[in-house]
Amino acid sequence: MASFTILEEFVVKKQDKLLEIAETYKPVLNHSSKVIKPDEKHLGRGDSQLIDFGNHYVGYITLIFRSIGSHPDAPLSLNLRFAERSEEFEYKSEDYHGWLSKSWIQEEVLHVDVLPAVVKLPRRYAMRYLEINVIDTSPKYKVIVDEVTFETVTSATARMVMPEYNGDVLLQKVDKVCQHTLANCMQDVYEDGPKRDRRMWLGDLRIQALANYASFKDATLVKRSLYLFAGLLFNDQQISSCIFTEPTLEPDDTYLYDYALQFMSTLVEYYEFTSDMKTLKELYPYAKAQFDYIYKQVDERGLLPDKEGEFWCFVDWGEDLNKEASANAILAYCLSDAIRASEILGYTEDRQSYTEMRETLVEAISNYFWNEQRGYYHSGSMKQISKHTQIWMLLAGIPKDPSRLAERLTTLHEGPEMVTPYIYYYLLTALLMYGRKEEAYSIIKQYWGGMLEIGADTFFEVFYPNDPQGSPYGSCLVNSYCHAWSCGVIVLLRKYYM
Amino acid sequence: MASFTILEEFVVKKQDKLLEIAETYKPVLNHSSKVIKPDEKHLGRGDSQLIDFGNHYVGYITLIFRSIGSHPDAPLSLNLRFAERSEEFEYKSEDYHGWLSKSWIQEEVLHVDVLPAVVKLPRRYAMRYLEINVIDTSPKYKVIVDEVTFETVTSATARMVMPEYNGDVLLQKVDKVCQHTLANCMQDVYEDGPKRDRRMWLGDLRIQALANYASFKDATLVKRSLYLFAGLLFNDQQISSCIFTEPTLEPDDTYLYDYALQFMSTLVEYYEFTSDMKTLKELYPYAKAQFDYIYKQVDERGLLPDKEGEFWCFVDWGEDLNKEASANAILAYCLSDAIRASEILGYTEDRQSYTEMRETLVEAISNYFWNEQRGYYHSGSMKQISKHTQIWMLLAGIPKDPSRLAERLTTLHEGPEMVTPYIYYYLLTALLMYGRKEEAYSIIKQYWGGMLEIGADTFFEVFYPNDPQGSPYGSCLVNSYCHAWSCGVIVLLRKYYM
Repeated sequence: MASFTILEEFVVKKQDKLLEIAETYKPVLNHSSKVIKPDEKHLGRGDSQLIDFGNHYVGYITLIFRSIGSHPDAPLSLNLRFAERSEEFEYKSEDYHGWLSKSWIQEEVLHVDVLPAVVKLPRRYAMRYLEINVIDTSPKYKVIVDEVTFETVTSATARMVMPEYNGDVLLQKVDKVCQHTLANCMQDVYEDGPKRDRRMWLGDLRIQALANYASFKDATLVKRSLYLFAGLLFNDQQISSCIFTEPTLEPDDTYLYDYALQFMSTLVEYYEFTSDMKTLKELYPYAKAQFDYIYKQVDERGLLPDKEGEFWCFVDWGEDLNKEASANAILAYCLSDAIRASEILGYTEDRQSYTEMRETLVEAISNYFWNEQRGYYHSGSMKQISKHTQIWMLLAGIPKDPSRLAERLTTLHEGPEMVTPYIYYYLLTALLMYGRKEEAYSIIKQYWGGMLEIGADTFFEVFYPNDPQGSPYGSCLVNSYCHAWSCGVIVLLRKYYM
Repeated sequence: MASFTILEEFVVKKQDKLLEIAETYKPVLNHSSKVIKPDEKHLGRGDSQLIDFGNHYVGYITLIFRSIGSHPDAPLSLNLRFAERSEEFEYKSEDYHGWLSKSWIQEEVLHVDVLPAVVKLPRRYAMRYLEINVIDTSPKYKVIVDEVTFETVTSATARMVMPEYNGDVLLQKVDKVCQHTLANCMQDVYEDGPKRDRRMWLGDLRIQALANYASFKDATLVKRSLYLFAGLLFNDQQISSCIFTEPTLEPDDTYLYDYALQFMSTLVEYYEFTSDMKTLKELYPYAKAQFDYIYKQVDERGLLPDKEGEFWCFVDWGEDLNKEASANAILAYCLSDAIRASEILGYTEDRQSYTEMRETLVEAISNYFWNEQRGYYHSGSMKQISKHTQIWMLLAGIPKDPSRLAERLTTLHEGPEMVTPYIYYYLLTALLMYGRKEEAYSIIKQYWGGMLEIGADTFFEVFYPNDPQGSPYGSCLVNSYCHAWSCGVIVLLRKYYM
C-alpha cells in the first residue's frame, strides 16, 4: 500500500518572523572521526572488502586507495554499499521494485581515474557497514584500501548518561541504544531517520522531544522545530506533517490529522519542560488553528468521518488498519492538551470552548465506536477491532472502565498487527497509565529486546518480531534502521523502571 | 587474446632534464561550450532522455535539473551513459566480460540530493551522445533536464583547413574527419584515444605527428612528446611504449620493438619538418639506445627471433598474426631512418655502422623470409603469409622487385585480417610508394569511407568493414571510436590526391 498524498491545491504560507527565530536556534554539528585501517587485500575485478565501524553512525566517508602491480593503466571502478545492518547486503538493489524511491538505497558507483587517491564522498550516510566491491581495476594492477574514515555528525551535545535499572541488563541496553538512536537523528533538525527520510515529521518530533527531555535534557532543537513547523503553513493555516530544509525551508503537501493535532501536545509538553511562556504564547495560535481546520470536517454525528483509502491520519504503518476511531480518540486526546495550554495561558474562553468540544466528542465516540457485545471499541464501516483503537481510547480517557480495557488490551489478538515502535510507544504508555507494568515489561523485552537480539545498534522504524527483515515497503533495503520514534520507550523506562 | 605485458624487473630511470624541457611545452587547453536545451520531458522511475551533441567532442558535462510536482521527498538517482556512437547503447555494461578493464565504459550512477541542481561531473568524457536514465525520483515528483553543457577541450590551436580534392566529396569528408579526430586526441599529450586509453603510445605518436605536419602544422606537442618518451626510460635505456602523466610522469612497463625503433623515425621526421637540430642532437642517443638494446636479441641467423605468445611487437591487433618477419622488416626500415639521422648529424661512424647493419639484416631477411615458391614473404615457424608482412617488407625496401610485390599485395587474400587504421595507413603508404593509386583509393573508400557510411564523426581504433560493431576486446563498449592513429591517411591524401 503506497501511503502518500499529493495535494492539488497547495498554497504555501511562510511565516518569516517565525522562521527567522527558528534559524537562530540552528545547531552546530559536532564532528568526530572513526578511522579504520583494513587488512591489506589486493583487490581486482569482482573482489570485495567489508568494513565494519563497530556501531551505527551518521556522517561522511573518506577512502584512501593505492595500487599494487604495474602503473594503473585504466581507472578503478567501484560499487560501494552502505548498510545499517549487515543483513541488507543479502538483497540486491536491482531486485527492489517497491513504491518508495529506489534512490534511498545507500549505494554508489564511482570511478577513480588516478591512483593513489583520497576519495571523499560528498553525500552523508547512516550506517555501520561499508561493502567495497571492485567492479574492475585492470589485468595490470590491483587496488588496496589503505584507510577508511567515517566523520560522524550529530547535533546532540550532551553525553550519554546511564541510569541504574537495578541490574536489569536488558533495560540498561535499551536505554543506551535509545540514546544512541536519538543522537544519530539529531542533525540540523530532528530527522525521522538519518538514512530515510532524513527530514522532520511532526508526529516523530513529539516522541523525539519527550525522549530528549528524559535523556539529554536539551530543548533547543525542540524549540527550533516548533518554530519551523509553525513557520511553514499552507492553505487554511495548516501545519504540514513534514518539512524540508533544502534547498530552502518548505512544507510538504501532506496533512495528517493526528500529527497536526499533536502540535498542541508537543507545544504544551515543551512548555512544561522549559517554562518558556513566550514560545507557548507565540505558537499557541498555530496549534489552535489545527483544531479549527479539523473541526470543519466534523460530520452530523459530531465525529471526524472515515477517509479510508486516503493517507489522512498516520496512527501506524501496516496494511488494512482502519483509522476512524483512532483519529477521533486522538482528537479527544489532543483537546485535553489544548485545555491544558489555554489554562496555562489564562485563555478562559478557549479553555471553556475546548472543554465543551471534548465533552461532546467523548459522548459521540462512546456512542458510535463502543462495541458493547465485544467489549472493545471498533472502527470504520466494517467495525474493525484493533489494538490501535483501544490504545488511543485509553490514552484519550474515553472508556468508562479504563483499567478493564487496559487488561483486555493485553489479550486482544485480532486486527492488523502493530508494526512500528511509534504505536508500540503509545501501547506501553497506555498500559503503564493503568499499572500494567509487567505486561509492558514483557512487550519491551519482546519488541525492543527482539531488535537487540538480532544485533540492533539503533532501534528501527519498523519491526516484525517474526520477520526481522520484513518491510512495509517491499524490501529491507529501504527500511530505516535508526529511526527516532523508536526511542520513546526511554521516557517510560526512566519514569516507571529506574 | 589479452595483449599486455607485466615486466617483473622494471627499474624506472627518469631523465629529469628532459622532463623539465617537456613540461615547458605543456599546452594550454582550449575550451568551448556546446549548450543543449532539451525538450521538456517529465522523467520518473525508468524514464530516459537522449542528448545528441551533433558531433564527437571531448570534455566535461554539466547538467541542470529541476523538479516538477510536489517538493522532492527523496533523492534523484540517475544512470548516465556516454557514447561516441549511438550503437553503443544497444549493449549493457553488465554483459561485458572482456579482458580490457570494465572501468573504460563511460557510465556513471549518481544521486542528486537537492533539487533544483547544477551537477558538474568531475570526469572527462569523449562522446557525442548522452543517455540520461532516471533510476528513480519518487511517486511525488518528476525531474526535468533543463540544460546540458558540454565544455569541450583540445590543445589544437590551428583551425581546420579544407584543401581541394577536385570535387571528390569522399576525400573531402575523410580529410575533415581526420582533422577532427586528431584535434580531439590533442590534449595535455597526444592521447591515443580520448575515451580509452587516454594516454600516449609511441607508435601512435608517429602517425599523429605526421598527420599534424600535414594538417595543423604545429610541432610543439610533438616536441613535448619526444622529450617525455626520452625522459622516461627503464632498465637498459629502453623507451617505454606508453607513458602516464598522472599522478606523476611515469613509463609503462611495456616494450614493443616496433614502437621503440620508430622513436628514431619520429625524431628524424620531426627534424625534417622543423629543422630543430638541437632536439635531434639531444634525443638521438636515446633513439640509438633502442637499436643497441634490440640488437642484443639478434640470433645466429642475424635476425630477431620470434617471440610468439608475448606482447613484444605491435604491428596490428587481430588474432593469430605472426610478427617475426614484420619485426625484422621494421628493424631494417628504422635502420634507414637511423642512417638518415646520423648523416644529418654528421656522425659518420654511426652512419657507417648502421649502413652495415642494414645490409647484413636485409640479406638475412631475404634468406629466411622470402618464399620463392609462393612469391611472398612468410613469417614464423608456420611460414605464415600475411598482408602485414608484405607491407613492412615493401616499406623497408627489402624486395628485389618491389613493384611486383606491391601488385601481388593487392590480390593477397590469406593470413589474418587487418583490423586497425594503424596497419591500413602503412598498407596505403606501401601501395602509394609503388604507384598503386587506384587500389589505394578503393581501400580508402572501403575502409575510411566504410566508417563514414555508418556515421563516423571521428575515425576508429579498429574497424571490421563486415562487422561494424566488432571489437578485439569482446564488446564495442570498450572500443575507442576516436583514435588518432586512424588519421594517418590525411598524410597520404594531401600528398597524393590533392
